[in-house]
Amino acid sequence: MQIEIWSDVVCPWCYIGKRRLEKALDDFPHADDVEIVYRSFQLDPSAPVVPTETVAESLGRKYGGGPEAGKQMIDRVEAVAAEEGLLFRHHQALRVNTVDAHRLLHLALAEGKQAELKEALLSAYFIETENVADHDTLVRIATGVGLDEARVREVLQSKEYADEVEADIRQAAAFGATGVPFFVIDRKYGISGAQPAEVFSQTLERAWSEAHPVLDVVGGADACGPDGCAI
Amino acid sequence: MQIEIWSDVVCPWCYIGKRRLEKALDDFPHADDVEIVYRSFQLDPSAPVVPTETVAESLGRKYGGGPEAGKQMIDRVEAVAAEEGLLFRHHQALRVNTVDAHRLLHLALAEGKQAELKEALLSAYFIETENVADHDTLVRIATGVGLDEARVREVLQSKEYADEVEADIRQAAAFGATGVPFFVIDRKYGISGAQPAEVFSQTLERAWSEAHPVLDVVGGADACGPDGCAI
Repeated sequence: MQIEIWSDVVCPWCYIGKRRLEKALDDFPHADDVEIVYRSFQLDPSAPVVPTETVAESLGRKYGGGPEAGKQMIDRVEAVAAEEGLLFRHHQALRVNTVDAHRLLHLALAEGKQAELKEALLSAYFIETENVADHDTLVRIATGVGLDEARVREVLQSKEYADEVEADIRQAAAFGATGVPFFVIDRKYGISGAQPAEVFSQTLERAWSEAHPVLDVVGGADACGPDGCAI
Repeated sequence: MQIEIWSDVVCPWCYIGKRRLEKALDDFPHADDVEIVYRSFQLDPSAPVVPTETVAESLGRKYGGGPEAGKQMIDRVEAVAAEEGLLFRHHQALRVNTVDAHRLLHLALAEGKQAELKEALLSAYFIETENVADHDTLVRIATGVGLDEARVREVLQSKEYADEVEADIRQAAAFGATGVPFFVIDRKYGISGAQPAEVFSQTLERAWSEAHPVLDVVGGADACGPDGCAI
């Protein structure tokens, strides 16, 4: 069974939804047969590579009231994150572009390190308030999960995987996803938003039984068997 | 969409069921996307290669009353076949072994000629009352649908495809099929026996919509979008 997760590195509900899915998978008897693939989504493609403000400052500027008002706006997200064991410093996080982080997530997918890199990027952003657009920071995070430094720098300095990032974004649109997190199981079931773990559990069970059916037989018509034909 | 059909060359309901499925496919809008594969099933593995009696004689011997009683026993099958445009001379058909015919059907599958060979074998057996265990007869039928004579003789003189025939028979047992025809759509839906064309139509429609779902989305939870997060 495959779960594709459209998400962004700077999306708080994506990190919270990730924890809730993980909780559901802990109780899912076929978790070993589940493959997770992260797909790219950019919430704020116009965000700068070199940060100019924090998330709180950006919200305060956009909606009025300054950084303090901006901070209050995300208090609830931080409280919900804490319930999932995630000690966000979201208000201090930097408003930055994520396209390079997404390109590295595609590299990590090819190298079998995507789950590790995704967790490390989310943690770096929401908990350590690191600049996940900065190349040296990205190199440190990526090599920390076992990716090769030369290869990471090569990808960062090129446009490699930019097409894959774009294709992911187009696919999300094709599925009608206007926000993230957006979870897709076997290209059949979608889960939009950071649903409670029980919703993930129910959908996992439903998708699994769908994918592993007992043959559904229409019977009762004339046939031939070892003892002869219905004649 | 794939339809696997377990059947035997000497099975009257298999030929009748084949016509009913074909009728359903004539009206099925996605018929061009349907692939049909015939799987082997032997109704009477102990039947001889060199025939000693007709089907009517065999039935009369088994159930009493001689060939005339045997013929009467299959009058209904012949009448139902006639309704499908099949002018059976089933009572005159020979009780023969079909393992070699099934091995050739596997060769024909590999060569892209299986549908043609299946129809030719059924027609030869039920309408022309030919001996479909006889190698020269099999060569004539197989070359008649475009198979290479040398290759056909090579398969007949070897044990080639015997394992595939056995594997098909085991798979039918795994599906719980004790008789034929047995139709399996996408390894998901089974149709046992020569059901009316409408049953095939309904099951084709059901399997198609199952295989081509619109994404079924659970929504309404916290998420982030281009205009910001639910905060």
